[in-house]
Amino acid sequence: MEPDRVLSDLRAYVDAELEKLFTADVPYKRLTDAMRYSLLAGGKRIRPILTLRFCQILGGDVSAAMPLALAVEMIHTYSLIHDDLPCMDNDALRRGKPTNHVVFGEGRATVAGDALQSAAFELALSAPVGPDRLVKAVAYLARAAGAAGMCGGQELDTAEDSDRSPEGLTLINDLKTGALLRAACVLGVLAAGGTDRQLAAAEDYGTHLARAFQIRDDILDITATEAALGKSVGSDAANEKPTFASILGVEAAERKVLEETEAAKAAVRETFPDPDFLLALADHLAVREK
Amino acid sequence: MEPDRVLSDLRAYVDAELEKLFTADVPYKRLTDAMRYSLLAGGKRIRPILTLRFCQILGGDVSAAMPLALAVEMIHTYSLIHDDLPCMDNDALRRGKPTNHVVFGEGRATVAGDALQSAAFELALSAPVGPDRLVKAVAYLARAAGAAGMCGGQELDTAEDSDRSPEGLTLINDLKTGALLRAACVLGVLAAGGTDRQLAAAEDYGTHLARAFQIRDDILDITATEAALGKSVGSDAANEKPTFASILGVEAAERKVLEETEAAKAAVRETFPDPDFLLALADHLAVREK
Repeated sequence: MEPDRVLSDLRAYVDAELEKLFTADVPYKRLTDAMRYSLLAGGKRIRPILTLRFCQILGGDVSAAMPLALAVEMIHTYSLIHDDLPCMDNDALRRGKPTNHVVFGEGRATVAGDALQSAAFELALSAPVGPDRLVKAVAYLARAAGAAGMCGGQELDTAEDSDRSPEGLTLINDLKTGALLRAACVLGVLAAGGTDRQLAAAEDYGTHLARAFQIRDDILDITATEAALGKSVGSDAANEKPTFASILGVEAAERKVLEETEAAKAAVRETFPDPDFLLALADHLAVREK
Repeated sequence: MEPDRVLSDLRAYVDAELEKLFTADVPYKRLTDAMRYSLLAGGKRIRPILTLRFCQILGGDVSAAMPLALAVEMIHTYSLIHDDLPCMDNDALRRGKPTNHVVFGEGRATVAGDALQSAAFELALSAPVGPDRLVKAVAYLARAAGAAGMCGGQELDTAEDSDRSPEGLTLINDLKTGALLRAACVLGVLAAGGTDRQLAAAEDYGTHLARAFQIRDDILDITATEAALGKSVGSDAANEKPTFASILGVEAAERKVLEETEAAKAAVRETFPDPDFLLALADHLAVREK
């Protein structure tokens, strides 16, 4: 199947499943409304698509991987809600819409993020995957979300005295963006019962894809318009936060995006059957304009 | 063994295990320091003690239940960090010490709470409990922590238009405090491989204990001194937040504490071998002064 078709099919499947979440009529409905608001604000769904696709090309049952895929997207969404809070990045605009706390208030946005994290683990643990592999998958996700992953990256990204040499920035990226993208890939392989070699290759793909993705993000923060991006631009410069794009220059950063993209592709080209979509996705993300 | 001895032994065991967490020398050490700060700020450890004790009286391996017990305490601790934030209850004092955000800043406190939640699930999933029961236990914890539990209770407790009749307040308590206390009890039974009847009884015990506990808290918010309590008092009245103690009066609220305490004791008296500690704990919490 054509990569574009894979992307649109899996994305439609993810969106349809997300749409079903948190619709119950409960006394705390304003909280679940806040959770739905950000979950359905229309991201690229790259993470859940990766989980599903890694499972799919290994011959696994995509519907069995879906709870894991949605869980990864929930972790990602909660992190965006909290990152946007006034005490963090203080962003009012995300994906072209007012951020969660602007609509629902800071307290509720904080709790909505918290509850999305809990919901991620609850849903993930409902996946019809053998319990041994399920425990391994969900533990991997929890580690990726926590201090040794996304939260640790957030700490380093926020701290004023962090090492912002290219190596330091790579560490920040590997934790803040890489850990969860890696988990998205690994969970798909685990859902399908892939080999250790495939697990390692999925990790490598996720690592390099995340580096390319983040550097592309940093470039767009300099070169894109708010209208094209659907979120505030120039925030790195406004926060005086060095990025690959600002310390190496946009051109060198573009080259680094391409290098990391090639490394991502190399990781999966020989290890997985039918890697075309994974290759095309890496290429697509390398040149994205938003 | 005497209930006092059970309490002090299990508490010492929990404190010793908590002390070992997040000690690694990592680049994001300020984040793990913030996590440790609140985790080691000296709570009563009632939740992990309940997990361990329910496991113990059923003949289970207490050390196997420890990761689950610590996970419950981590969820509790993260909720305190977030509850104390300026955008929530805005409390500067907790357990006699400055709250997390006062020491570490709001952004880091938010992330420390987030990372504690992730760490809870990662650690819980490492428990040497059969994978089927482990999945069930951790899913129960995730549900208790989320919108259908603690976070939903937080929403109702914070919303200005929530039902604050005795029934409404009971729902708020059952979610905000009850869900996690129930989970603490249930996880101990699951770790030991208890029967469905014992699971149900542990839930009942947790529910009634939590009601008694929360109403006692509300009473102390009116009657105690800040020095005795180690945290701000009068905050409910200052927030004009009705509680059992304020709508029924302290005396009627005290009667309700005793009723719920008796219900908690009744739930476990016949269902568990050696329930003495559980009975004594309920009695102890009913008359606690802090």
